[in-house]
Amino acid sequence: MITALCPGSFDPPTNGHIDVIRRTAGFADRVVVAVVGNPSKAAMFPPERRVELFRETVTEWTDIDTRFDVIAHHGLLVDLVEPHGIDVIVKGVRAGDDYQNEHRMAQMNRSIGGVETLLLPTSPEWSFVASSLVREIVRLGGSVEHLVPPAVQRALGETR
Amino acid sequence: MITALCPGSFDPPTNGHIDVIRRTAGFADRVVVAVVGNPSKAAMFPPERRVELFRETVTEWTDIDTRFDVIAHHGLLVDLVEPHGIDVIVKGVRAGDDYQNEHRMAQMNRSIGGVETLLLPTSPEWSFVASSLVREIVRLGGSVEHLVPPAVQRALGETR
Amino acid sequence: MITALCPGSFDPPTNGHIDVIRRTAGFADRVVVAVVGNPSKAAMFPPERRVELFRETVTEWTDIDTRFDVIAHHGLLVDLVEPHGIDVIVKGVRAGDDYQNEHRMAQMNRSIGGVETLLLPTSPEWSFVASSLVREIVRLGGSVEHLVPPAVQRALGETR
Amino acid sequence: MITALCPGSFDPPTNGHIDVIRRTAGFADRVVVAVVGNPSKAAMFPPERRVELFRETVTEWTDIDTRFDVIAHHGLLVDLVEPHGIDVIVKGVRAGDDYQNEHRMAQMNRSIGGVETLLLPTSPEWSFVASSLVREIVRLGGSVEHLVPPAVQRALGETR
Amino acid sequence: MITALCPGSFDPPTNGHIDVIRRTAGFADRVVVAVVGNPSKAAMFPPERRVELFRETVTEWTDIDTRFDVIAHHGLLVDLVEPHGIDVIVKGVRAGDDYQNEHRMAQMNRSIGGVETLLLPTSPEWSFVASSLVREIVRLGGSVEHLVPPAVQRALGETR
Amino acid sequence: MITALCPGSFDPPTNGHIDVIRRTAGFADRVVVAVVGNPSKAAMFPPERRVELFRETVTEWTDIDTRFDVIAHHGLLVDLVEPHGIDVIVKGVRAGDDYQNEHRMAQMNRSIGGVETLLLPTSPEWSFVASSLVREIVRLGGSVEHLVPPAVQRALGETR
Repeated sequence: MITALCPGSFDPPTNGHIDVIRRTAGFADRVVVAVVGNPSKAAMFPPERRVELFRETVTEWTDIDTRFDVIAHHGLLVDLVEPHGIDVIVKGVRAGDDYQNEHRMAQMNRSIGGVETLLLPTSPEWSFVASSLVREIVRLGGSVEHLVPPAVQRALGETR
Repeated sequence: MITALCPGSFDPPTNGHIDVIRRTAGFADRVVVAVVGNPSKAAMFPPERRVELFRETVTEWTDIDTRFDVIAHHGLLVDLVEPHGIDVIVKGVRAGDDYQNEHRMAQMNRSIGGVETLLLPTSPEWSFVASSLVREIVRLGGSVEHLVPPAVQRALGETR
Repeated sequence: MITALCPGSFDPPTNGHIDVIRRTAGFADRVVVAVVGNPSKAAMFPPERRVELFRETVTEWTDIDTRFDVIAHHGLLVDLVEPHGIDVIVKGVRAGDDYQNEHRMAQMNRSIGGVETLLLPTSPEWSFVASSLVREIVRLGGSVEHLVPPAVQRALGETR
Repeated sequence: MITALCPGSFDPPTNGHIDVIRRTAGFADRVVVAVVGNPSKAAMFPPERRVELFRETVTEWTDIDTRFDVIAHHGLLVDLVEPHGIDVIVKGVRAGDDYQNEHRMAQMNRSIGGVETLLLPTSPEWSFVASSLVREIVRLGGSVEHLVPPAVQRALGETR
Repeated sequence: MITALCPGSFDPPTNGHIDVIRRTAGFADRVVVAVVGNPSKAAMFPPERRVELFRETVTEWTDIDTRFDVIAHHGLLVDLVEPHGIDVIVKGVRAGDDYQNEHRMAQMNRSIGGVETLLLPTSPEWSFVASSLVREIVRLGGSVEHLVPPAVQRALGETR
Repeated sequence: MITALCPGSFDPPTNGHIDVIRRTAGFADRVVVAVVGNPSKAAMFPPERRVELFRETVTEWTDIDTRFDVIAHHGLLVDLVEPHGIDVIVKGVRAGDDYQNEHRMAQMNRSIGGVETLLLPTSPEWSFVASSLVREIVRLGGSVEHLVPPAVQRALGETR
């Protein structure tokens, strides 16, 4: 049995993130989604709200919903390894410069916690979607309906 | 139970490759190492010899040696998925341009065979080691003792 | 007849930007320069001042000055397409990591507005010039005379 | 009126190439597709056959087929500029390392022939498709039906 | 005799920085380490404290300690060239996107001050270490003992 | 006193190479230019002819010509270190993917020979010039007069 950790700031969760955690559930038995909140950054949604948005989304996948845990986390990723029985970290990566950052984070997490990170190439159709772009479009009054899951779409309707 | 496929031309296998397949055995239950031979390229060792070199190497890891299969393969990677019960492909990647090629290969293999590829960042100490550099050093008469596993080192002694 | 949109934050306009919009006028019949102001960032010049700096610059090109419109814009780029009759967006790109961001922005703008983006490689002589570097040099008391057009040079004289 | 040159080795033409030339016809009035044959490379199809494959493909677009010229060319790209009235070169580029090569080719062509090159980001769904990957899949006996236009699909049926 | 300038924000100095300045002393006769403080950024240590941390570190290298000068600097790098007799700037660079920024900074410094910059590839074992990652680990309560020199380790003990 | 080694295949030497060795002579006391010939590649000029072309070029710099040695070399670079008293290797690098290869070569040469490599960013005006592009233009009948030094220009006149 393999348990995978999918960490991120997810502010907000996008269809790209959803694609990564669903595909991770295709080869891992259990997936822990950890919402990492950096308090020094202004956020679109507070970390706890992002946890709820993932939970609402996962609940819609009735065939595999029992295989996901969604948690908020405020410390080092490696501190999750033992309590949650994590075997590997899985991160989605887009082509290009994303890789350099993830490569370093992976080597750092292995250096300080002995845990491996596996990088999962994004699906082509979500390769250009990033939370920062979604926030920018929302700020400028555009629609992100085709870029985020329904739960986020509903939440954006509330916040605006 | 998870079965991982580690493919490559491995001409010759380097300490970087060895590091990747050992680390893959850290989270996968079984590892299939597939030596892919491109007949249009002149090779240092024929594919069958590379298979032997991996087998000699794996045999030295007496605690985990039963978890490895080493095979030669001359077709599409996706043709290995069903007969070998492959769950995921795992490829080691170095920082930089390696990622672009692997990213595309991953998307292609998912497109034609529905199989996922997970990219595993190289260990820093092997980040500069590539089979092509090893071949070049050998061609120019240098020593690669610290870059390849003992079985390859012995085989190079024979071939020169 | 083709109308190109050249958007940017242009804080301040550099010789690299000037080079891109002049070269765009070499194949487009009309060029709309849109100064995009992100209110959440502290600026060297307010967006309206940047519009003036471009207008002063364009006026000096008496042979082609009637082919430029310079505007400030505070919404999505795709909202400019219909009112200004935009056929394509043209962005200057330097070698390296610039491309990844522009690639994603291009795919995003096509996704939300159906408009194409064409990337124009910078001229080698301006390949290292960025507004952020110009701001840094000015902040540290250096001269940017050879990096910005005369109108910006004059404006910097005023502000310091 | 603007005339765009879309050059490439196109061995074979892929859905990615088709996407680029169709999108180029969306903002250019006329598109010259130039099949560039490097005689030093072994080819899947000879340049003249690739020209035919494009012509068959273009003919199926009855609404815009009169706007394409397809030619074979064996010299410098810049030699096509005057005889064909080329205003700009348009090249499709995928994320990542593609850009570096195209950036240099663009600066070189401007240096020797004064012609501008515009880089058009690939559509996400074709971002991983390259002629070299298509040739590799075909060589290994796989299907490329979803990666190439019908004319190429038919031609591959003939050649195998 | 050659004098090298090693500039950086060094907040805090890491083993990667230490590796670069020691290796620079391997081919340069004198090394000027310049701590560049950007007042607009919140810092872990003020620039003057970073200077002290380097001085404590250098003092431990009793065989070569007389060859280092450590200074704080608040202006353009090129302003250090004449007063300190700088022949070249030396910057450590990790694989990947680091290079693009350093490439531009190098061309800019040559453009405004006529001074050359030489880029020194990081040692593989420190290739993933960056001051920003060190600050993040410290912020989250992790240990960075194996990533920073003893003087920084002691200072972190004081500040927490 | 510092002696720098500038290695390359230089087939043919370009203005980019000339720029790098001249700039190296700006901070090094002596420069050894080593023409490295890979016998497995078809060449425009044999290595010995490339040595002559550099010698002719250097002779024209009467103020600094005594500071250059030009040699052909067929072994490992690190074998040149002791006999020629090399302190550092200096390689010119263009923006982008060049860096990844040079980064690895640098780490490899340090690993097998203990010699450091310093990477010198190309001058912007030569950033797009590569020997392979020069060979391609010559093959297609174009002029490379503005891309190569006079000695190479004369030699190309002879060979065609």
